[in-house]
Amino acid sequence: MTTTAPSSTTKISIEFRPHDKVTRVPPGMTIFNAANWIGLPIDSTCGAKGTCGKCKVRILHGNNGATAADRRIFTDEELADGWRLSCRSEANSDVVCHVPRLMGNPKAALMGFDRHVILNPNVNKVPLSLASPSLEDQRSDFSRIRDALKPEGYAVEASLNLLRQLPGVLRRNDWHVTAVVVGHELVSVEGGDTTDRLFGLAFDIGTTTVVGMLIDLNSGAPVAVRSALNGQAVQGADVISRISYTMLHEDGLSELNQVILRTLNGLIVQLLDEGGVAPHEVYEVVTAGNATMQHLFLGVDPEPIGLEPFIPAVEDLVQASAQEVGLEILPQAQIHCLPYLGAYVGADLIAGLLATGLAQNEGVRLLVDVGTNGEIILGSASRTVATAAPAGPAFEGAQILDGMRASTGAIEAVTINPEGLELQVIGDVPPIGLCGSGLLDVVAQLRLSGLMLPSGRFVKAEEATELVSPELARRIITDEEGRRSFVLAWPEESGSGKSIVLTQRDVRELQFAKGSIAGGIDVVMQELDVDSDELVEIFLAGSFGSYINPQSARIIGLVPPVPVEKIKAVGNAAGEGAKIALLSFRERQVARSLPQIVEYHELSGRGDFNDSFLAVLQFPELDTLGIEKWA
Amino acid sequence: MTTTAPSSTTKISIEFRPHDKVTRVPPGMTIFNAANWIGLPIDSTCGAKGTCGKCKVRILHGNNGATAADRRIFTDEELADGWRLSCRSEANSDVVCHVPRLMGNPKAALMGFDRHVILNPNVNKVPLSLASPSLEDQRSDFSRIRDALKPEGYAVEASLNLLRQLPGVLRRNDWHVTAVVVGHELVSVEGGDTTDRLFGLAFDIGTTTVVGMLIDLNSGAPVAVRSALNGQAVQGADVISRISYTMLHEDGLSELNQVILRTLNGLIVQLLDEGGVAPHEVYEVVTAGNATMQHLFLGVDPEPIGLEPFIPAVEDLVQASAQEVGLEILPQAQIHCLPYLGAYVGADLIAGLLATGLAQNEGVRLLVDVGTNGEIILGSASRTVATAAPAGPAFEGAQILDGMRASTGAIEAVTINPEGLELQVIGDVPPIGLCGSGLLDVVAQLRLSGLMLPSGRFVKAEEATELVSPELARRIITDEEGRRSFVLAWPEESGSGKSIVLTQRDVRELQFAKGSIAGGIDVVMQELDVDSDELVEIFLAGSFGSYINPQSARIIGLVPPVPVEKIKAVGNAAGEGAKIALLSFRERQVARSLPQIVEYHELSGRGDFNDSFLAVLQFPELDTLGIEKWA
Repeated sequence: MTTTAPSSTTKISIEFRPHDKVTRVPPGMTIFNAANWIGLPIDSTCGAKGTCGKCKVRILHGNNGATAADRRIFTDEELADGWRLSCRSEANSDVVCHVPRLMGNPKAALMGFDRHVILNPNVNKVPLSLASPSLEDQRSDFSRIRDALKPEGYAVEASLNLLRQLPGVLRRNDWHVTAVVVGHELVSVEGGDTTDRLFGLAFDIGTTTVVGMLIDLNSGAPVAVRSALNGQAVQGADVISRISYTMLHEDGLSELNQVILRTLNGLIVQLLDEGGVAPHEVYEVVTAGNATMQHLFLGVDPEPIGLEPFIPAVEDLVQASAQEVGLEILPQAQIHCLPYLGAYVGADLIAGLLATGLAQNEGVRLLVDVGTNGEIILGSASRTVATAAPAGPAFEGAQILDGMRASTGAIEAVTINPEGLELQVIGDVPPIGLCGSGLLDVVAQLRLSGLMLPSGRFVKAEEATELVSPELARRIITDEEGRRSFVLAWPEESGSGKSIVLTQRDVRELQFAKGSIAGGIDVVMQELDVDSDELVEIFLAGSFGSYINPQSARIIGLVPPVPVEKIKAVGNAAGEGAKIALLSFRERQVARSLPQIVEYHELSGRGDFNDSFLAVLQFPELDTLGIEKWA
Repeated sequence: MTTTAPSSTTKISIEFRPHDKVTRVPPGMTIFNAANWIGLPIDSTCGAKGTCGKCKVRILHGNNGATAADRRIFTDEELADGWRLSCRSEANSDVVCHVPRLMGNPKAALMGFDRHVILNPNVNKVPLSLASPSLEDQRSDFSRIRDALKPEGYAVEASLNLLRQLPGVLRRNDWHVTAVVVGHELVSVEGGDTTDRLFGLAFDIGTTTVVGMLIDLNSGAPVAVRSALNGQAVQGADVISRISYTMLHEDGLSELNQVILRTLNGLIVQLLDEGGVAPHEVYEVVTAGNATMQHLFLGVDPEPIGLEPFIPAVEDLVQASAQEVGLEILPQAQIHCLPYLGAYVGADLIAGLLATGLAQNEGVRLLVDVGTNGEIILGSASRTVATAAPAGPAFEGAQILDGMRASTGAIEAVTINPEGLELQVIGDVPPIGLCGSGLLDVVAQLRLSGLMLPSGRFVKAEEATELVSPELARRIITDEEGRRSFVLAWPEESGSGKSIVLTQRDVRELQFAKGSIAGGIDVVMQELDVDSDELVEIFLAGSFGSYINPQSARIIGLVPPVPVEKIKAVGNAAGEGAKIALLSFRERQVARSLPQIVEYHELSGRGDFNDSFLAVLQFPELDTLGIEKWA
C-alpha cells in the first residue's frame, strides 16, 4: 500500500489532527476512507453509510460543503463550525481536519499478500435490553427492536422468516437479546448476549477443488479450513463439459446445482464441527469462483457462457439468502458472490486482485491464474487490463501420455544434473505419472541440459551422448517411427511397472498451452505499453499455480523474462480474496467496483493474439534469460 | 379533498405556470405532491424517488435550495436557472414555478367515498428491445436489462428466482421482452410487449369473510370481485378464539396459516378464472385485515396480541414475496400488508381511513367499524385519534336467544307501525332468526313505538294495549317468571315452526355492546374536544356496518345524535382502501404514515371509559334526537 510520494500532481493532501498524520489521495476520496487507509480508522457503526453519525470530524481548512446527510445529523451551528460526516465528505482540495474519535479497538490483519486489512465486517451484533411492552408502550415486537437499533446507527428491515420467530425469542429471553445485523437486514435475534460468537464462511468454488474457510469475524482468524473435490467432476472435468452436461441432460442444471450444494454442505458440516460452531451462528457467506461455477452454485443456466459471445446471466448478486440458495446455515444468512470481469475471468480472479492488491497499488504487476483457462491481469492503481487465454488441459496433466493430476504417485518436481535425474514424487512412492508442475520442470530442465532445443525438439540420441552422461543420454529413446521421448522412470523404477515418458507430442501440448498464456500476456502488455523490465512482481495463482517452480515458468517462457525473485506463487489467492471480502466491507466495495475499473479484452478473433501465440510457441533462448546451459 | 380556503395562516401558496393554478399547502409538502393533489400530475417514472429526473420544474420565485438529488441530475447552470426535481423540492415559503411536462395521460378514478385517486401503481411495465450480446458487448444478462431500465428511471435489483429464468426468457424471445418492476425490484421478464396486461390483487381478510378483488392496474378497474367465508371459522368464530387455538394446539399456528392460505388461494383461482388472467400476471398484492388475521396470514404467532398489553409482532411488512407467503401467483410478486394502529385497530381501519380520506381532509369525521370489536377513529387532517371498544358478539347475532348471522332466513330489517309489524328477511323466506341489523332495527322501532323505555325495559302488557293496536300489543309476552319478550314471529309465521322473540336479556346484550362503542366514541370526542354538532360525517363500516340502518343506529345511541343524512354506511371500506393502496403508491405511503399520525388510545383500565360506558347504557330520549314517538 502506497500512501506517500504522490505520483501525480492531481493528488490532494489531508491532514488529520491531533494525530498529525498527513496523506495524499486522489480527489473524491472520502476523509473516512483516507483515514482508514493510513491506519487511523475513524469510529463508525453504520459501515460508512452516513446514518450513525459516529464518524464526525471537524474541517479546519478546506472546501468541504455540507451534504444532505450532514444536514440531517448536525445543527446549523455545528455545520458552521465545520462538523461533517467523514464518510460522506469527499476531499476535493487540500484539507485539514480534527478527528475527535478513533475506532475503539481497531483490529487489522495482514491478509492475502502483504495486504493490511482493517476488520470491518458487514455483520454486526448489538446486545439489547428492551423495555417490556405495556399498555403505555404498545409498539410491535419488530418496532421495539428497530427503535432500539436506531441510536446504534442501524436502520434495519427483516424477512418474513425472522418475523415469524420474533414473538417467541423475545419473550423466552425476557427481552434480553442480541440483534444480528447484516448490512440493512436484521438476520437473527438471539437470546442473551452472544456478541462473542460471530462467524462467516468464505468459499473458493473451483472447477476441481472447493476450499471452505470458517472465519471468526470478531478476530479475523480462520477457525477451520477444509477442502474437497468438487463433486461435479463426475459430470465433466472442466467448465465446458459441465456446461455441455446442462445442455444435454433434461435436469442437468438442477443436478449439477444439487451436486455442488452437497459438496458445500458437506464442507460446512466438517468446518462447523471442527470449529465448534452451530449452523445458526454463520451469518454471511462470500464465494469466489469462475462464472460457470457460480452460476451452477446459484442454479442459474450457464449455457450462454459456453457459446460465443460468452455471456453470464449475472455478474454480481446481492439479494440471496442461505435458504434461497440452499446452504445449511442460518436461513437468513446472506450470500455474496463476488463479481466477474467476464465469462472467462471469474470472481476467483476478482478475489485474486483483492488478495494481491494489484489494482489498488502503484507499480505494474502481473497476475496469472494457470489452468485449463489461463486468466491474466496486468496493471496497477492507474489502469488494469485483463484477458483469458484458452490453455487447454495440459497443465492439469490431461492430453499428456503419462499425465495425471497432482495426487499420490505424481512426479511434481524434476531436477536434471550431469550425473542423472532426481524426481520428487507426491507421497514419496514410486512414480506412476507426471502432473503439471513436473511437466514444466522436466521440460525446463531438458532445456537447461541442452537435451531440448528452443523449437521443442529433443536432440538426437547421438548428440545427447556428447552433451550428458551416458546414464542420462540413454533416457532419450526413439521408437520405430523415429519419434523421440525422454524416459523419466524405467519400468523397474515406476509404481505401475511401465516406464514413464515425456513424448515429443507431450512437449508440443505444453508449447500450445504455454504459448496461449504467454500470447495473452503479450497482448495485455502491449495494451498497457509495458515491457518486462517494468514489472514489479508476477503472481502465479490457482491451485496449480502455487506448485509451479518459478524458475521453470521463466525457462519455458510461460511468464515474461524477469528476475526469478519477482515471480511469486500465491497459492489459493481466490480463497484469500473471498476471506478479505468477508472481513472487510470496504474491501468488498472495492471488489464490486473492479469490474468497472478493470478493462477486459476478449482474445477470440483478435489478430494480434494469433500473432503473439505463434511467436511464443518456441521456448526462449537461455542467454536471453541470463541463464547458462550447464551442459 | 379541500385545497382552497386555508384554515391556518401557516399555509404556503404554490403557483403552477403556465397552468395558472394556485394551491395552499402545509409547509414541507413537495411541489410534486401539491401538484398531484390539485389534479395537475407532474410526469415521473420513478414514483417520486428522485431518480428519473422527469418531474423537473423551474422555480421562478421561492426559497428552494438544491438537494443532493438535484445536484446529481442538473448541471450548475441549470441549478442556477432554478431547475429542481419537484418530487424532492419541499415548499417552505410561497413558491411560483413553471411545470414543463405533465403526465402524458393522467388517469384518475373516483374510489372509496368521494376520493379522487390518481392511478400511480407501484407496478410498472417497460417494453425493451435489447441489443444482442456480442464480443464487443459482453455485459451479463442482468446488466443488460438493468442498463436498459436506467434511462427509464428505474434502478432495479432482482431475486435469485428471477435471475434463474433470465437466460432462457431473453434468448427465447430474441431480446424483445417486457420488464416488470415493482418498486425497486425486477419481479418478472416476459417475452414480447405485454404492457397491456398488468394486474394486482386487493384482499380484505376479515375474521368472518374474506373479500378478494382482481384489479387491472392499467385502468384501475376491478376485473373480478369474489368473497368467501374465512375457512378458520371452524377453529373459532372470533379473534380471541383463533388466538386460543394457536396456544392450545401444537401446530395450531401452522394449521390456521394453511387454512387462510387455502381460502385466499381458492379465491385467487376464482378471480383469475373470471378475469381470464394467468397467475404470473399478478405482480402485487395488498392486504387489509385486523392484526390477528394478518399475523395468521403471514404465519407469525399472534399470541401476544391476545394477552395484555396486546402487542403485535409486526405492524408493517414490506419484504415478503408471494412465494414466501404461500400465495399461488407470480412467485416474485410482492405482498404488502397495510399497517395497524394497534393490536385491536387493524389494517382494515387504516384501509378505511384511506377509503374515507378521514385523516387527509378538513372537517372532523367519525369512522366506526361495528363488530365484535368496535374500532373507532375520529379526526381530520389536523389531528386524528383512534380506539377500540370490546363490544362482544351481539352485533354478530351471538348471545342473542334467536340471533343468527346475516344469512338466508335472518330478519335483517324491521318496521313497526300502528297497524303491525313488517319484517324484511334475507332470501325472502319465512324468518328463522334475527341478525345484527335486524336487532338494531327492532329495538329502535320499539323505542319509536313507545313499547320500550329509555332504560331498555319493555312496557307492561297492559300499558302496551293503551299505546298500540291489540295486534301489536299482544306481541309483548310475559313468562311465568315475569320476564317480558317481544314476539317477532309467531310459530306459524316462522320458518322453524317456533316463535322468534326478542328477550329482555337480548336487549341488555345490545345495550352493553352499543354502550361499549358509544363509550369509546365518547372518549375520543372528549380527547379531541369535539361535540356532535361539529361532526361533518359519520361512517359506519365493516360487513355488518354497511347493513345498519343509520336511523336505527341514531335512535339506539350507537352513534352521536347528528342529523341522519350525515350517517353513511360505507360497506367494505377495508377492501376499498386496500384497492386504493394497490392503485396508488402515493396513497400507500399515506397509509404507511398513518400509524405515526393517528394517536391510539387504549381503553383497557381507563376510568373515563368506564364512566362513559355506564352513562351510555341507556337509550337516548327521543326528544333529544328531535324525533317524535308515533304512539
